[in-house]
Amino acid sequence: MDRFDTSLDELRVGGLPLSLLAERVGQTPFYAYDRSLIAARAAAVRRLLPQGVGLHYAIKANPMPALVGFMRSLVDGMDVASSGELKLALDAGADARTIGFAGPGKRNGELRQAVASGVLLHVESVRELQVLADTAQALGRPARVALRVNPDFELRGAGMRMGGGAKPFGMDAEQVPAVLRGLVNEGLVFEGFHLYAGSQSLRGSAVAESLHRSLDLVLRLADEVPAPVRHVNLGGGWGIPYFSGEAALDLDPVVEALAQVQGALQRTLPAAQLVLELGRYLVGEAGIYVARVIDRKVSRGQVFLVTDGGMHQHLAASGNFGQVVRRNYPVVIGTRLQAKEREIASVVGPLCTPLDVLADHVDLAVAQPGDLVVVFQSGAYGATASPQAFLGHPPCPEVLV
Amino acid sequence: MDRFDTSLDELRVGGLPLSLLAERVGQTPFYAYDRSLIAARAAAVRRLLPQGVGLHYAIKANPMPALVGFMRSLVDGMDVASSGELKLALDAGADARTIGFAGPGKRNGELRQAVASGVLLHVESVRELQVLADTAQALGRPARVALRVNPDFELRGAGMRMGGGAKPFGMDAEQVPAVLRGLVNEGLVFEGFHLYAGSQSLRGSAVAESLHRSLDLVLRLADEVPAPVRHVNLGGGWGIPYFSGEAALDLDPVVEALAQVQGALQRTLPAAQLVLELGRYLVGEAGIYVARVIDRKVSRGQVFLVTDGGMHQHLAASGNFGQVVRRNYPVVIGTRLQAKEREIASVVGPLCTPLDVLADHVDLAVAQPGDLVVVFQSGAYGATASPQAFLGHPPCPEVLV
Repeated sequence: MDRFDTSLDELRVGGLPLSLLAERVGQTPFYAYDRSLIAARAAAVRRLLPQGVGLHYAIKANPMPALVGFMRSLVDGMDVASSGELKLALDAGADARTIGFAGPGKRNGELRQAVASGVLLHVESVRELQVLADTAQALGRPARVALRVNPDFELRGAGMRMGGGAKPFGMDAEQVPAVLRGLVNEGLVFEGFHLYAGSQSLRGSAVAESLHRSLDLVLRLADEVPAPVRHVNLGGGWGIPYFSGEAALDLDPVVEALAQVQGALQRTLPAAQLVLELGRYLVGEAGIYVARVIDRKVSRGQVFLVTDGGMHQHLAASGNFGQVVRRNYPVVIGTRLQAKEREIASVVGPLCTPLDVLADHVDLAVAQPGDLVVVFQSGAYGATASPQAFLGHPPCPEVLV
Repeated sequence: MDRFDTSLDELRVGGLPLSLLAERVGQTPFYAYDRSLIAARAAAVRRLLPQGVGLHYAIKANPMPALVGFMRSLVDGMDVASSGELKLALDAGADARTIGFAGPGKRNGELRQAVASGVLLHVESVRELQVLADTAQALGRPARVALRVNPDFELRGAGMRMGGGAKPFGMDAEQVPAVLRGLVNEGLVFEGFHLYAGSQSLRGSAVAESLHRSLDLVLRLADEVPAPVRHVNLGGGWGIPYFSGEAALDLDPVVEALAQVQGALQRTLPAAQLVLELGRYLVGEAGIYVARVIDRKVSRGQVFLVTDGGMHQHLAASGNFGQVVRRNYPVVIGTRLQAKEREIASVVGPLCTPLDVLADHVDLAVAQPGDLVVVFQSGAYGATASPQAFLGHPPCPEVLV
């Protein structure tokens, strides 16, 4: 919350008091993303990165078209996970040469679109290689490929583990040498590797360790490559704090590891660019979800603020997006920041289901119908990661301010 | 699965072999709802209901327009939870007099649309009553109201508890007498009560007990009503089995309780119609979700069938819709029903997240790319209860066959 300005009782977003922004949007609920916060975060990351390391934006975190367009000026490339996201990146003006396309279940048509576009394919299986070779021949265009490797280690302390053990992502590290040796097809242009151990990690030392181990794995695999390694995408996994008691990611060990990895790559694989792929870390803390209090009810002693927003638009805040135990996102009454009267209240949505909870038993300013509830840390995995059609409520606008 | 016909190796849906249906739809994934199974289920429920009990369809379970239109001929009314669902019901030709509108966060505009439409409002708060009185005056039309009561008991054995304790739904039972006494406004027409203790119960005795206790509560409250009770909606809560080891709801005690409740109502509140509101129970078992195997991978000994469908289209099957512990929906390879070769495999989707799992370590026919995976029990809380925009994949068609 302290990232956002305030004026008297109101939060300010993109320079506007919250209630004025709501009037500008013309309805509640809505998502608002603050471009100055996004730019500041991207600049801060850039300052920390060793020279030459590429910074990519993972569109899946927030694919709002205007935001993707804004990101284009802040990063060196985009990573997409479907042909829909590929279209978004291209529409935003991203250079196809700087776009990477990952995803464990790419359809043949998607692979064809990707080859036609000239983007780098993060290849997840031997089948994809076969389809790409055929496609390259059919289109008379090379298929640029990087192998996505399922590492033989996990990112410790990650919110979600994407590598290590048996996984549907990429090819197991131990299978990769044979794949590389078979990679002699004139349609396929080998460019490098993609490793992604996990996401939403708040432990800098774990991210750093993962970088070191990823480098070791890449160096081992590099013995078998059919062409110089030009591209090494080591993912991201940088988390943001969502819940009480969580601290921001300590970047010191990460930056140190990046410098060491970059140095080692320059010595051993001088043609390779190290690429860092961040989504949530770039945009997550720059966004809020805003809903209006419709009703204030007291049921058997418990205060409920019933809002026009809910789980259909912010599934993660309702605790139904991968969480095992529901915890509260940071929430305030954005129109009563200075109120002295406070109370324990629960913020719920308009759906007829007990799952529709935005905040459970939190300390809030005493609110009334008309007040605006703000859910922070909502710039990533919000609108598109939610079942918006559920119960037939209107779609939720997103604004970039 | 034994509800659906088969022909040789293929499941049949709506009289069509699955692979032919997929060709007719023109793409995968898709949802298919079998109208003969829905009609048979509705007829079976009708046969069990005591004469005079109204059967309503809760649109939230599945709002596909064609299905809502089909349901209209099978039930006596519709229950809606938003102005979007209200439009669906009216578009389907439902008589406004038979539509009920419930929801804890109805916006003023929605209340106005409801009054303009002439539907029965299930009033959830004193604020709603005030808005409705004003709206009725402004429009020169009466607002038909039933009070939604948060009972002083819970539905034992329910998948989700909607009543009892502190809840955002309805008004606490103990507050209702005072509300009823204040309900003297020429714009408001009192018609009855709505009680809904919980949903997705598989224990007939618990549903029966809930009916009895709901009746007792209605009879207590009826002492204070300003006009004859004409409408008593006791919800539904009838569950369907999803997971291994779950048995179908035993309806014997439910039917017995309904007969007793109906008898008691006829004796004491002769103008009242008892209404049963079912959603999932009517349509849930008549629907399947169909996805195509895109890739078959073995990672460190584990078989993964990567499909073009996943959590973005079937959130509940991925275990991210209110479940605490993920369990597998019933799944088969719908194009290899007679295959003797079987294996333990996991079915995953195309998303770059470990949450995207449709079935984890299940016994399946050995499948290859091109085969069709079928997820049963998918006729309710499927397409609209899923984050379809997540990762930019195409929307999922639904067909009623």
